[in-house]
Amino acid sequence: QSDTKDYSLPNASWSPDMVGLYNELLEKTTAGSWRRLPSYLYSGQFLKKEDLAGIAKAAPAAEDTRLFLRVAEKEGHGFEYAIFHNPLEKKCICLFQPGPHLEGLPGIIHGGALGTMIDSTFFITAYRSADAIFTGTMTIVFKSPVILGSVVRLEARVTGTEGRKVFLSCEAQNSDRTVLFAEASG
Amino acid sequence: QSDTKDYSLPNASWSPDMVGLYNELLEKTTAGSWRRLPSYLYSGQFLKKEDLAGIAKAAPAAEDTRLFLRVAEKEGHGFEYAIFHNPLEKKCICLFQPGPHLEGLPGIIHGGALGTMIDSTFFITAYRSADAIFTGTMTIVFKSPVILGSVVRLEARVTGTEGRKVFLSCEAQNSDRTVLFAEASG
Repeated sequence: QSDTKDYSLPNASWSPDMVGLYNELLEKTTAGSWRRLPSYLYSGQFLKKEDLAGIAKAAPAAEDTRLFLRVAEKEGHGFEYAIFHNPLEKKCICLFQPGPHLEGLPGIIHGGALGTMIDSTFFITAYRSADAIFTGTMTIVFKSPVILGSVVRLEARVTGTEGRKVFLSCEAQNSDRTVLFAEASG
Repeated sequence: QSDTKDYSLPNASWSPDMVGLYNELLEKTTAGSWRRLPSYLYSGQFLKKEDLAGIAKAAPAAEDTRLFLRVAEKEGHGFEYAIFHNPLEKKCICLFQPGPHLEGLPGIIHGGALGTMIDSTFFITAYRSADAIFTGTMTIVFKSPVILGSVVRLEARVTGTEGRKVFLSCEAQNSDRTVLFAEASG
C-alpha cells in the first residue's frame, strides 16, 4: 500500500463550478487560517502513527482494501472531493462532486453516498479539531435531492465537547448556497 | 441499461456464514410469508413504472450511471447483500457482507457504507410496505465496529405512518445476533 497520490486535487472530471469553488478556498489557505487536506487511496494514510498502531491491533489487516471514498475505479465516477480545515474555527469545508456511480433514484445521489461524505467530513473535523476517531450517533435530515454531477458544499463544525464526546453539525448546500440539500448532527 | 442480472444471488465471494444465513431465509420463502428481492446494477430497475416516470421527469438522465450499492467493479469488493421482505409484518431482513473497498479505519467498515446499507434497507422496506420513496430523516447510533468480510444482519421494520410519512427502525447485528453493530431510525 505505497500509493501516495493525493486524490483531492482537481482533475479533468471536475466541473468549472467545482474548480471555481476549489480555487476560492485555496486562496484562503494562503492567508494562513485554512489548510487544504490531502486524501489517499488507503485508509489510515492520514492517521497519526500512534493512532494507527492502536487501530491495527483491533482489526486484522484485510487484503486489497481501499478507503470507501475511493471505491469507484475511474476518475469522476464516484466521490470527487476536497476538504479544507480551519483549526482555529474547528471547522471543515468539503467540496463534493458526486459521480454517476453514486446513484440512488434515477439521476439523484443515493442518500447513503451523501451520508458517507457527511460522515467523512465529520470524522476529519473531529479528528483534526478534537482528536476523536469514532462516530457515535449521526442524524441526517434530507431536504432536497442532489443531482449527480452537481457540486455540494459541506460545512461542518465542532459545536461542543463532553468528556471524550465531540458534537458536530453539518450543512450540505449547493455551490451558491441557495439550496439546502441536507443538515446533519453527530 | 439492459443488464438484468440479479446481483443478490450467492457468489464465490460469499462466506459460509453468509451463505448459511441466506439459505435459512430462502427456506422461509417457501412457506409463503417471506419473499427474496432481486437487485440490479441500475437504479430504478426495481421501481414500478408509474414511479419511474415521475422521477425521471424530476432528474435529467445521467450517462453511465450505476446504483451506488453496485459501485465496486469486482465481485466481493463492495456491497454483497440480499434482502428478504415480509409484507405482512412490514419488515425486511438484509444480509450484508462488506468487502475490502468499503474501508473506513483500517480493517473496519466505513460508517457511511453501513449507513448506505441501512438507508437502502429502509428505502426498500418503506417502498415495499408503504409506497414511500424518499428518506426524510435518518439517525444511526454506531455501537461496535464491523470487521470487513464479516456478516451483518439488518432487520428493518415499519413502526408507524403519519400521512405520507413512514417511520422505520433497524438493527444491525452479527450473524448469530450476539453483537449489536448499530441501531437506526428513520
